[in-house]
Formats: sequence, C-alpha cells, structure tokens
Amino acid sequence: MNLDTLYSELTLKTKTKIVLLVLDGLGDLATKEQGYLTPLEAARTPNLDALAGNAAQGRMLPVAPGITPGSGPGHLALFGYDPLEFQVGRGVIEALGLGIDLKAGDVAARANFCTLDDKGIVTDRRAGRIDTKVCEELCAVLSSKIRKLGTTEVIIKAGKGHRFVVVFRGSGLEGPLTDADPHHEGAPIPTVAPVNKKSAKAGKAAQLIKDFYKAALPLIAKRKPANGFLMRGIAHQPDIPSFEERYQLKPACIAVYPMYKGLAQLVGMAKLEGPQTIAEQFERYLTEYDHYDYFFIHYKYTDMYGEDGNFEAKKKAIEELDVALPILLKKRPEVLAITGDHSTPCPVKGHSWHPQPVLLTSPLSGWDKLQRFTETGANTGSLGIFEAKYLVRLMQANAKMFDKFGA
Amino acid sequence: MNLDTLYSELTLKTKTKIVLLVLDGLGDLATKEQGYLTPLEAARTPNLDALAGNAAQGRMLPVAPGITPGSGPGHLALFGYDPLEFQVGRGVIEALGLGIDLKAGDVAARANFCTLDDKGIVTDRRAGRIDTKVCEELCAVLSSKIRKLGTTEVIIKAGKGHRFVVVFRGSGLEGPLTDADPHHEGAPIPTVAPVNKKSAKAGKAAQLIKDFYKAALPLIAKRKPANGFLMRGIAHQPDIPSFEERYQLKPACIAVYPMYKGLAQLVGMAKLEGPQTIAEQFERYLTEYDHYDYFFIHYKYTDMYGEDGNFEAKKKAIEELDVALPILLKKRPEVLAITGDHSTPCPVKGHSWHPQPVLLTSPLSGWDKLQRFTETGANTGSLGIFEAKYLVRLMQANAKMFDKFGA
Repeated sequence: MNLDTLYSELTLKTKTKIVLLVLDGLGDLATKEQGYLTPLEAARTPNLDALAGNAAQGRMLPVAPGITPGSGPGHLALFGYDPLEFQVGRGVIEALGLGIDLKAGDVAARANFCTLDDKGIVTDRRAGRIDTKVCEELCAVLSSKIRKLGTTEVIIKAGKGHRFVVVFRGSGLEGPLTDADPHHEGAPIPTVAPVNKKSAKAGKAAQLIKDFYKAALPLIAKRKPANGFLMRGIAHQPDIPSFEERYQLKPACIAVYPMYKGLAQLVGMAKLEGPQTIAEQFERYLTEYDHYDYFFIHYKYTDMYGEDGNFEAKKKAIEELDVALPILLKKRPEVLAITGDHSTPCPVKGHSWHPQPVLLTSPLSGWDKLQRFTETGANTGSLGIFEAKYLVRLMQANAKMFDKFGA
Repeated sequence: MNLDTLYSELTLKTKTKIVLLVLDGLGDLATKEQGYLTPLEAARTPNLDALAGNAAQGRMLPVAPGITPGSGPGHLALFGYDPLEFQVGRGVIEALGLGIDLKAGDVAARANFCTLDDKGIVTDRRAGRIDTKVCEELCAVLSSKIRKLGTTEVIIKAGKGHRFVVVFRGSGLEGPLTDADPHHEGAPIPTVAPVNKKSAKAGKAAQLIKDFYKAALPLIAKRKPANGFLMRGIAHQPDIPSFEERYQLKPACIAVYPMYKGLAQLVGMAKLEGPQTIAEQFERYLTEYDHYDYFFIHYKYTDMYGEDGNFEAKKKAIEELDVALPILLKKRPEVLAITGDHSTPCPVKGHSWHPQPVLLTSPLSGWDKLQRFTETGANTGSLGIFEAKYLVRLMQANAKMFDKFGA
C-alpha cells in the first residue's frame, strides 16, 4: 500500500491548531573560528529554550543524503510533498520569486537579455550585465507591445540586472521545454523543443516561444548591448494536490518574501499579506487564529545572513526571532514545529545538505531531556534523522489527526 | 524521479581528493567481560581522536536492519551500489577471493570435492575434508587435462581443504544456474539448469557444466574419497556500472587481500599492487596521490581478529592502524571517511548486522562535539544511522561535487 494513501485513509479532522515556523537556512556548522558553536548554539534564546523543555527534537534531510536543495524542494518537503516526485521548474520558481500570481498550467521561463552580433550569434550571454533600470525599461517595451500571442496571455516582469521572467497563460500548454540558450557565447540562440516529444501541449508551448521571439526581437534590435534574450528552465506550474485536501487542514501562509508566498500558493495555501517583521507576522497569526488550522510562518534572515557567511548577524537574527516568540505563544498552538527548509551554514555561504535541526512541541511530543534547541542536541533527539517530507505527518500525529492503523 | 539519476544530474567534476579507509569488520559490542568497552573504545587512538575533533559521525546499516552481509554486499554498499540491486554470485566472490582476474561475463562456480559410491550417489559432501595439498593436486590434474571446452576457456583454482573454484570464460554465457549439489548425502549430483529458463546464454552455460562433469569425473574416478565434486553458486560476473562514470571520480584500490582487490575491480577501480602493511598502503597513497581522485584503502585485521573472537588482538590492530595514520595525513585528503564494511563483533565471532560506526572529516563536515571515534559516540553524531550506500554520496557532497537541486 502506498504510504500517502494510508495517511489519507487514517486522517481524522480535528480543530487543533498547527504552526510550522521556518527559520530559513537555520542549520549550521560548528567551527573553530566561532568557538565550536553554531549560530543557534551561540545565540541567547530563552524562549526557544523554554520550548525545548517540552519538545521532541531531531534533524531532517531536506531531500536525501548529500543533496543540497533550493528553496522550492526545501519547502515542498516541509509541506509534505516528496521533492523528487513534485518538481517545480526553475522558470516557475523565478516567477513566484518575482511575485507573479501563477495559476496551474501557466508556462514560465527565466529569461535574460544578451548581446547578439549581426548574424544572430550570442556574443555576451549577460548583455554586459545591464542595469536593473535598463532591464525594466526593456521589459516595459516588450510588455506594451506583446500582450497576447493568439489567445495566450503574455506576462513579462523584470528582475535584477539583466534578468526577467516571461509567463504564458493560455489553455493546453505544458513544459518542460529545452532551453533557448546555447549556454556559451559564439553560437546562435537555439530553437526550443518539448523535452517529451510526444506531448502536444509542450509542442504548442514551444511554438508560442518561437512566436514570442519573432515578435520580441525586432522590438529591441537597436538596443545593443541588450539586443537579444535567452530563455531557460521553461516549465509549467505543476498541478500539485492541494494541501487542504491532502491533510484535511485549512492552511495559511504568513511570509514576507514573494518566493515563499508563491511556494505556499502552489499547494493552495491562503496568503496573508501585509506583515513585514516577524513580530508583525506573529501578530497576524493571533488575529487569524480562528480562521485557519495550519499556519506556515516564514523567517528569511537566518538564510540571508548564512549566505553572507555573517555568523554574528545570523546569531542576532535568531535572537530577534526569539524575542518575538512570546507573541506567537499568546495563543499557543497545540502543535508547533520550528525548523529550517535546509541548512545555510556560514562557512558554506550557501545552502547545504547538512540536516536541519527540528523542534516539535505538543502536549504529546514528549521531552528528550534537552535544555536547548541546538544542532548537537537535536542529533540525540527522539525524532532521529528523518526525511523532511514526514514532518507534516508527525505534526498531524501530534494533533491526534491519525486513527489507529489496523486492530 | 530516480535518486541515482538525480545524483548523476547534479554531479560536478572537481579535483578534490577523497579517501575511504575501511577497517574491515570494525564495529563491535560492549560486553561485561571487556569492561563494557568495544575494541575501538578500549584502544589507544590519539590520531583517530584528533580526526574526531573535526568530523561528523554516525552509524551505517550495511544493507538493511538485521541483515548480516558478506564482504561482497558490504563493500558494494560502501562503493555506493545498492546491494539488493547489484548482487554478485557466490561463485564470483569465491573466485575473486582466490585472486582470479575475472572479466565481465565470466561464469564462476564454487566447487568442492565429494565422495561418490559405485552408483554415483554422494556419500560424503566434503570428501572426508581432504587436505588442501590433495585438493591442489587434484585441481592440477583437472587443469592440465581440461583447458578448454569447445571455445570456452576453463580456469580451475584450488582453495582451502576440499574447496576449489571453476571459471568458464567464453562468449555468450550467463548465470545463475541451479546447483550441481543435492545439499545432502544419499542422492546423486543433480544436473544444473538455468534459473531463468528463457535465457539462451544460461542454457549454454548449463551445457558447459554438463560437458565439464563429463570430462572431469573420469579423471578423478580412482581418487576416492575425492572421486567426485559438487558445484554451487554458479553465476556470471555482472556488468556493474563503473565507479568512475557513476561518480566522476577516478578510483584506486590499495588492498592486501585478493577478495577486496577483486571487489574493487568489479566496479572498475585500479588495483595498486604491492603494499603488505597498512603503513606501506598509506605510503603508496602518498606516491599515487596525484593520479587518482578516490582511494579505497582496505585493512583486514580488525575483521580477522573479530572472527577469532580475539578482543585484545582486534584492539591492537586498531592501535596499529592509528600509529600508521599520520603517514596518510601527510597529504591529507579533503574528504576522509573511516568505517567498516560491517561489524564483526568479538562475541559473535563472525560478521553481524550491527551498524558500523563511521567518521567523516572534511572542511565542511562540521563537528559533532565528540572527542573520540567510538560506537557509542557515533550513535549521537549528525550523520545519524543511515544506509551504507549513501556514504559515497555524503563524501561527494563534502567534496562539493553536487550542484544545488532546484531553485
């Protein structure tokens, strides 16, 4: 029997409140330079410590041993979707990151301006790294002239520097397509093709990309160095089973950054817009407490400072979250899990494969005799080291949402 | 999506040096008789301790909970091949153990002399356990008279006591075949047959075995008690994807015993012959440092003394390895893993299913706040308890050989 089917069959609806608090990129490494402490170990965290006094701890593999995930697979796993089964194309992630309100079936592409010579050969894949302002101007030109191709709506949005995103919204489209990018200078822009040659929908999408090039290139022909563009990671927004149906929980997302709102939207969570600080996010949770069963609260700064390799700032970001935590606990959810979507260790200055620590507290979580929430302590916790996709199941179990399996 | 496919797609080539140091049968059990210490815990290991001061630790299941592996599955798992998917027949392992230089497609059989009565009934399956010398004589007789069967080359090599190995090298052969062994006295030698009846190649191999019996039995008819022989585990050397292609690492094996060289050769590792002691093995690593990316260094004595149930000798073997370790560290590899292929606990006097401890040190391994490398400490490490087949993936990750998965 398929395990997801079993979970579904055993699921009971309850009125329990569940909160997933994600400190993005939380996990870290102990190095000599920092006195063999991680930022989480070095931080002053009285409120987290208090939670640790009645919690189960463990560590989670975002995907599989040694695999470093992007934010997409990292969050899909936290939401309980096998990141190998539910893959989201780069174009889609990029569009979500720019705050485009994607719908299932939309085909999205990462794009960037490039330089072409007289014969159409790519001479600079990044168009001399033009300024964001120039990119915005060029995107405005393209947007104003190309609103539709046939019956398909075209959405163009500028990103940073030479980067932008194109979304095709119409019926009967799908990805993935091969890249319209030679991946090196000295070659022309290749024509896209469906990865799965038998897909008529992907064939239709490929034709749209060709039509888009035909309409768009003349509009920027005189804008050297940005007289061409490349498109990559062309994929459709997959039809992911809705979180609410899958877990019998009405979910809401309280995030600040567009990418995480987008990922939550992918699985059908409500987006509660407005809050800009973690204190405001917790306040919003309080006001929305009665309206949802499951809250995904996303905190970006642990990841951001990990990417910078800034130990002190990451430590401070953890301390700031800790200071705000009592707001959340004014209406303490029955089940609260605190973790990351992956580790972003300062020595790595980027995402990594190291399992992220997780703390789960509920009236039934038990206590692992740990006084604090740390990577080293979590190694010895009762949750062990497990795949992140099971976290939501443990949260459901702690919410008494599973009937007994068998007699 | 298949996980191995994902690992392949994410693999980046680097120039990092990786060393897998296998203390065969390393894991052990703490018993009252030995003051509740394992040999690893009781041993004086200043050099291993120093490595533990900057390492991740854990324990590995060689195959699955409760499964005691032979050296074949134990090492295939360490090399990253799922031991359930890549099975190597006993005949092949036995031939490798005798140092026969097998090639893909060779069909190998474990054989042993037996006693037959006038009617061809097996009266002693082990021919009264004849001496190795007698076995060698008989094998020499068979070898000199049967060099070929048709176009197929026949290789016969004596083992210990009544045991020997027969290898058939020709084109279009495959196993497995049923045994030419009644598995009890009082029955004739059964005729072999292909396990997969539809395989023409196995049919051809079965006919060869019949031809071999027809040619060989008359040659020893008067050599009672060794006037017959049985053949078991008849299989071909499988075509295992090469280590180098699979991991984008050029691998070399520095082992002393033939079986381990053979297992390394199965996956296409270069065999660096010559060294007889662990110090010589480490010296050889130093001289070959520039020529390979991945070194598999095998140390036999921990297993040997575990098999003997000799606690003191196993402890001493660990200490001797520890003394030699600084030679290896003269050119410290970026990634070094130290573990066993399985446990061989002294109280068991044989291989066991108990997870073997593993230590992994690299600039990105982090530190689990453990001062020593021991079974009990490893239980609390950040690697957790995981399947041994993932070790090579963790080593690749520590060598920064994996691109990020998803955006």
